[in-house]
Formats: sequence, structure tokens, C-alpha cells
Amino acid sequence: MAAKEQSRGKRPILGVFDSGVGGLTVLQSMLQAVPDADYVYFGDTARLPYGSKSVDTVAKYAVEATQFLERQGAELLVIACNTATALALPQIEQAARVPVIGVVEPGAERAAEASHKKQVVVLGTEATVASHAYARALEARGVQAREKACPLFVPLVEEGWVEHPVTRQVAEIYLREAFAEGFEQADVLVLGCTHYPLLKPLLRSVAPPHVAIVDSAESTAQAVAAKLGARPAGSGHAGLKFFATDSVEKFRRLGTRFLGRPIKNVIHVDLRE
Amino acid sequence: MAAKEQSRGKRPILGVFDSGVGGLTVLQSMLQAVPDADYVYFGDTARLPYGSKSVDTVAKYAVEATQFLERQGAELLVIACNTATALALPQIEQAARVPVIGVVEPGAERAAEASHKKQVVVLGTEATVASHAYARALEARGVQAREKACPLFVPLVEEGWVEHPVTRQVAEIYLREAFAEGFEQADVLVLGCTHYPLLKPLLRSVAPPHVAIVDSAESTAQAVAAKLGARPAGSGHAGLKFFATDSVEKFRRLGTRFLGRPIKNVIHVDLRE
Repeated sequence: MAAKEQSRGKRPILGVFDSGVGGLTVLQSMLQAVPDADYVYFGDTARLPYGSKSVDTVAKYAVEATQFLERQGAELLVIACNTATALALPQIEQAARVPVIGVVEPGAERAAEASHKKQVVVLGTEATVASHAYARALEARGVQAREKACPLFVPLVEEGWVEHPVTRQVAEIYLREAFAEGFEQADVLVLGCTHYPLLKPLLRSVAPPHVAIVDSAESTAQAVAAKLGARPAGSGHAGLKFFATDSVEKFRRLGTRFLGRPIKNVIHVDLRE
Repeated sequence: MAAKEQSRGKRPILGVFDSGVGGLTVLQSMLQAVPDADYVYFGDTARLPYGSKSVDTVAKYAVEATQFLERQGAELLVIACNTATALALPQIEQAARVPVIGVVEPGAERAAEASHKKQVVVLGTEATVASHAYARALEARGVQAREKACPLFVPLVEEGWVEHPVTRQVAEIYLREAFAEGFEQADVLVLGCTHYPLLKPLLRSVAPPHVAIVDSAESTAQAVAAKLGARPAGSGHAGLKFFATDSVEKFRRLGTRFLGRPIKNVIHVDLRE
């Protein structure tokens, strides 16, 4: 539907959903890949993080977010949250009336292309790892996956310690545990959480030198651009609207670091009203 | 009401509320101080953590928990969560039909008694620190407070790294920042989050030797015992019932470490049903 409408020259309205500000790294990549669009971003900050919660709970929250973004006019929905994608993509697709793109398939696709050894390490939240969504997506492409939960990375990023010696030690521990027991030769590292792109420089220096890093935020933005297809050049200025379920000040403050540009006009919503 | 009923020999029903499993450290202390009671514990695990959320959101969640525990027959309510107490005690007291005890006042009272220098350092979540609830409670007792947010402690405890070198370094950084700028002589350290008692041995070895550690979980249990007053000896066996809003398996698994004994019979509830 979105593809059809924009072929007539209309700017598409793209809905982007995350549990918090992490999905803004996906939005940042999308703004580069598809600059001529109107974006509606929804961060469910009152109920974050999803990464430590169960399938049923995450699915319920994600479906509510989907319906909210459709009410805002979204013609294409990007689930910019690895946990929500990994746990609830089928439920979201069933509830949605518009096309849905999650972050797992694009990341897995890119990783499978990049891996010569056909062995990949995926870093993610506890819930993403427990779902084995990446392992399934990679195995379907003939690639073996070692999934490693990194529950300290999100709080370290939110503490602002992205280049901190403590974060380096934590990364060394997590990567040592991941690149072991048959995965010493794995040649791709997937950043399977939208907070992790902020740790990319540090992870680059900690990961074995032969390892390529695949950022699921970038892969997803490319998948969105491919889905929308070739489009006539527009103003090149994206429209941006932000909604959050908890404090708008905190969303603005924390979000600016994830989006890489100042955030204005955050609107508070309560999905239960 | 609780005090009156138990003076007739009836076991009191005590409601205990936290955003997750952290309040089980308070329950553990209560089981020692008041063993002859029926406990109903509610962990709002589907919406945790409260520590990074706003006043309005935490107050709304806490009032819902209060009403749930009253429906379970609670005659006295313990808010075993520093953030909920710090941000929403007045709203909870207004909504509750039974007496309410929070963790901040008992911890502040004990800290004020223990401090000769009348200078105290309080460690807590971001939201507890931003509320300045401890500073107000201590200043009312003539004690100066330095409140220090320690957002990495909760995930480090949940990762199980309670004696880990990384946790030690994080603790050294946080305490160095707290015991500075006029607070070098502070002689009491308040553990203002229910996760922190698990870090007590490590914090004991990192904190300056002259510093006394006040555990708000213990102080609160003593306040509950005092409120219930002298009671006839009973069976000495507490009744325990647990409710959680997210996965009951995870509550059982993680909670056992916080309660210090196996947890059975966790019942899932959805407050919106």
C-alpha cells in the first residue's frame, strides 16, 4: 500500500516502534536511506525494557503500539526493537493492517551474506536470545549462530559509558564467552539490539580483527528503502513526530544521543486512556 | 486495624509490594522480624523497573498494586520499593484503606541515629535520587544527605555479578563520586534500593572503613514489627503467597536469590483484566 501510494509521488508515512529510545538508531539509519518521508515514532517508555520480559507481555504491548501507529496514519510499520520483533512479529503482523518490517530478518540476511565461515555471533537482550529468532533466521540461510545475552550493555549505554573501561571489560567478558566452544572462527558479529550501535567503536576494538560487524539498524533501513522502491526526488526533508508513554523530557534528553540530532515535539500518550 | 486484630490473636495479613523481585529482600527481613503472619507479595514485573520512570507513571502503577493487595485481604501494606515510596507514598496513602509503611522513613530514621557526623550518603535508583525523598527525610532530622544514583547496580545484581571485579570497579567509581565535595567525612551509607542488600559484602569492602551501612530493608522490617506491637507467640510459620505480572518462572528463579529460600506458588496476574 505504501509502495503504491508513493509511486504517485505522495510522501509515505512510516511508523517506527520501540520500547524506548533505542529504536532511534534505526530511525537515524532510515533518515539516511529514506529521507523523503513522514516519520511517526512511538517509544513505550512507561513499560520498558522489553528485553527482560516474557513473550505474552511483549506481544500484548507490541500489538497496542501497532494499533496506535495505524491510528496516526502509518502506511508501513517498522518494529525497531529486536525483542519485540523476536518475540512478537507474527502477532504484530496478524494485528496490523499495513505491511510490517522487523529488525531480525534484515540483520540475519546481511549477516548470512557477510559470513564466509557460515558461523555468526549474535549479541542481544535476554529475551531476544531466549527466543532464538536470530538462530532460526540464520539457520534457514545455512548459517550457524551463537546467541549471547548481554544484559549489561543497555544500562551501560544509558549511563553514557560508551567508551568506558568498565564497558570494555564487560564487552571482553561477553565476547570471550561468545567466541568460544566451536565459535572461535565465527566471522560476523550481529548487533542484535538497537542500543548496541552506540557501542560499535568499542566492540570493533574488542572483537577479533577478522570479524565483520553487522548493525541490524542499518540493515533494516536498507530493507525499508528496498520495500519502498525507486522514488522521485522530493524535498529531502523528513517529517518527524515523536510519542512516548513516560516522561517526554527524559525521552528528549536520552533520545538525542541515539538519534544523533536534537529531538523536539515529543507528545505524551497513555495507551490505556 | 492490623494491630487491633492481631491483639485478639489473629495472624495479620501483610501486603508487600515491589516493581519486581527486589522487595523480597524486605520480605526476608520481615520474615525474621515478624515470622507469625500471612504475607501476600505482589511484584509488578511486567512493568519494571520503576527506577528510571516518572512520578506520574510510578504513582499510577503503585496505586493499582495497592488496590490489588487490599483485594487479597492485606491489613497492612509495605511498599518494599524505594522508588515507589520516594515518588508516590502520598498517592498510595490516599488510595489505601489500610495503614502503609514505606522504606524511606525507616531507613532515614536509622541512618540519622547512626550518624555522628550528621552527614550521610544514600545510594539509589535514578528516580529515587531525583525525588530527593531521602534528603528531605534526613534534613528533617538535622542530617545532611548526598544522594547518588547507581543505575548499574540493579542489572549487575540481576546478572549475578555480586562479587565480580567489574561490580567492584563500578562500586569504587560510584562511592568515590559520592564521598567527595564536602562528604569525605560522611559516616553512614544508606542502601536505598531493595536490590542493594545483595551487594552489601562488596560495598562493605569498598566503602571507607569508618562508614556504617544502613540497609533500608532491615530498618523497614523493624518498623513493621514495631507497628504490630507485642504479639503472643504463634506457630512461627509464615504463610507466603506470591503474585507477579510477568513470567512466573522468571520470578521464581530470580526471586529465590533475593528471598534466600525457594519460592513456590507464584500466580500470574494482569492488573488490566
